[in-house]
Amino acid sequence: MNKKINKNSEAVGEHPVITADIGGTSLRVALVSQDGTILHRYQGETSAVEGPRVVTERLFAGIEAVLEESRLLPDGLQAISIAFAGIIDMDRGIVTGAPHLPGWENVPLKEPVEKRFSVPVFVLNDADAAAIGEYRYGAGKGLSNIILLTLGTGIGGGIIHDGKLFTGSAVSAAEFGHMIVKDDGPACTCGRNGCLETLASGTAIAAEAKLRIAGGEKSVLTGMTGGRTEDITAEMVHRAALDGDSLAEAVIERAAYYLGIGILNLVAVFNPEMVIIGGSVAEMGELLFGPARAMVMEKSFKAMVKDLKIVTARLGNDAGLVGAAACAFETAIR
Amino acid sequence: MNKKINKNSEAVGEHPVITADIGGTSLRVALVSQDGTILHRYQGETSAVEGPRVVTERLFAGIEAVLEESRLLPDGLQAISIAFAGIIDMDRGIVTGAPHLPGWENVPLKEPVEKRFSVPVFVLNDADAAAIGEYRYGAGKGLSNIILLTLGTGIGGGIIHDGKLFTGSAVSAAEFGHMIVKDDGPACTCGRNGCLETLASGTAIAAEAKLRIAGGEKSVLTGMTGGRTEDITAEMVHRAALDGDSLAEAVIERAAYYLGIGILNLVAVFNPEMVIIGGSVAEMGELLFGPARAMVMEKSFKAMVKDLKIVTARLGNDAGLVGAAACAFETAIR
Repeated sequence: MNKKINKNSEAVGEHPVITADIGGTSLRVALVSQDGTILHRYQGETSAVEGPRVVTERLFAGIEAVLEESRLLPDGLQAISIAFAGIIDMDRGIVTGAPHLPGWENVPLKEPVEKRFSVPVFVLNDADAAAIGEYRYGAGKGLSNIILLTLGTGIGGGIIHDGKLFTGSAVSAAEFGHMIVKDDGPACTCGRNGCLETLASGTAIAAEAKLRIAGGEKSVLTGMTGGRTEDITAEMVHRAALDGDSLAEAVIERAAYYLGIGILNLVAVFNPEMVIIGGSVAEMGELLFGPARAMVMEKSFKAMVKDLKIVTARLGNDAGLVGAAACAFETAIR
Repeated sequence: MNKKINKNSEAVGEHPVITADIGGTSLRVALVSQDGTILHRYQGETSAVEGPRVVTERLFAGIEAVLEESRLLPDGLQAISIAFAGIIDMDRGIVTGAPHLPGWENVPLKEPVEKRFSVPVFVLNDADAAAIGEYRYGAGKGLSNIILLTLGTGIGGGIIHDGKLFTGSAVSAAEFGHMIVKDDGPACTCGRNGCLETLASGTAIAAEAKLRIAGGEKSVLTGMTGGRTEDITAEMVHRAALDGDSLAEAVIERAAYYLGIGILNLVAVFNPEMVIIGGSVAEMGELLFGPARAMVMEKSFKAMVKDLKIVTARLGNDAGLVGAAACAFETAIR
């Protein structure tokens, strides 16, 4: 496919899109076809600490790398669609704030990319993009009302309601990690206490293990880190729990309890058909979800959970890349 | 207006609707015109304890009373639209459950009313109806994304998103009273602990005052009830606080704090343009809302509250009656 063929083609709607997924650590770019297939990909570092100007240049470099690899010129694209780890003003394509990317306060992203590549540009929240991805191509395919809950360093989420991304007014909604579920709970990066993120995220799981060990409890985690317990990660806690370490098991049980409360709250206010759990912590699988699911089924209003499914995400890290593509391809979703 | 005129009229869309608002205590019926004006009304007791059959008969009696007073035959109506204090399967017009009305578990309501009066019948949750009412004719007029939070014996709510009632899958959503905000909080009627309803409802306000007095604290409430502190109501606590009673002030301050948390959570997940607070407890006005609003504005993500308004409901008890009417008149809302 090259510029000329694209220009003469009548099937403009069949052009692929370039999508990007910009997080606090990595910046990924892909060429995605209409059916959600990733044709080419690029991965680089976000270099978030260097601020918006450098991150934007890295995005340009990633887009150009994918264009070159796929032998496309920008006008062979239907659009560029960017999933970004921040609070997004979708109408204007502006990042209004980003907890893990310093300097992104009211920074236009749509405008510079449109200027550079002269194609339509969409910007959306990364968890929203992942929700669209799972809804369109993943675990939620065929349903209309789903919620994606992403458990990683933090907790995010996205809502599909009646087959459409739920965005709230002006900026993205679905900040599930910042529901307060324990008003006297741990301090959150957002300035409040007891946000779900402080109790059920990967960070929270690691922190709770460190706290218990500092309090004198025994665990194989001490040996696993060679005594440097400050290096404990959620992934280590998972491995220790699989090995039968009782501290690790208790820590994951606690996270599962708060995850259960978070899902209970989401079910009470949204009443979805399916709750999909993604993010790196989702790899703990049934160890984490089993108790959370049982709690939700037991403690919800029966009518609300009769047909509810709580499942793991299917697309892994690619949910955001393909979801951003669906957002560009289908007006009905956004 | 009579049957004959209606039958010959071409402006079928201009027929009024009969709406009902069925709560745990009272059953109200009204004839409502297209512009949301209540033309006639009827009020009776629900007699909830007598079960669904008797309540349905009381509804029939109420509808017939309004028909008679307005000199209409059923086919002079565009529809009958019923707001009901329960979890509603709107598609099928079934009450799937109702915490304050015994026996209403999977009870059809649309079908018997349609059979009796031979007009289209809609059934919706009472707080959803109130949200539609405030959106269409009240405080939220002209906006697209609003949340109604009703504070009374319990806490309920309704969501309007993009000018449409947000219903979730199958049954009504927006059970805001059952968001857990303090996981080790008081036991809730729903079987969980620390639901918002146990901390910021009228019942919670009265219970907290009783608890403090039982614990030996002094208050004018003891005198107001002639020592029968079990008779304390939220309304009395309000009056005592207005008189400067420090226990009553502290109790309302505590409720305002949890109300603030509830609104913070709703803003984080829905990002609405406006939060409207209704229900009997809303009559406490700024005493309750002032601190809650300040907390929400201070502790939310800035982009989410830049244009947010937190206001009191405007239509009082009539919100459900006129909202149910709008639900019947306008397909776009439901």
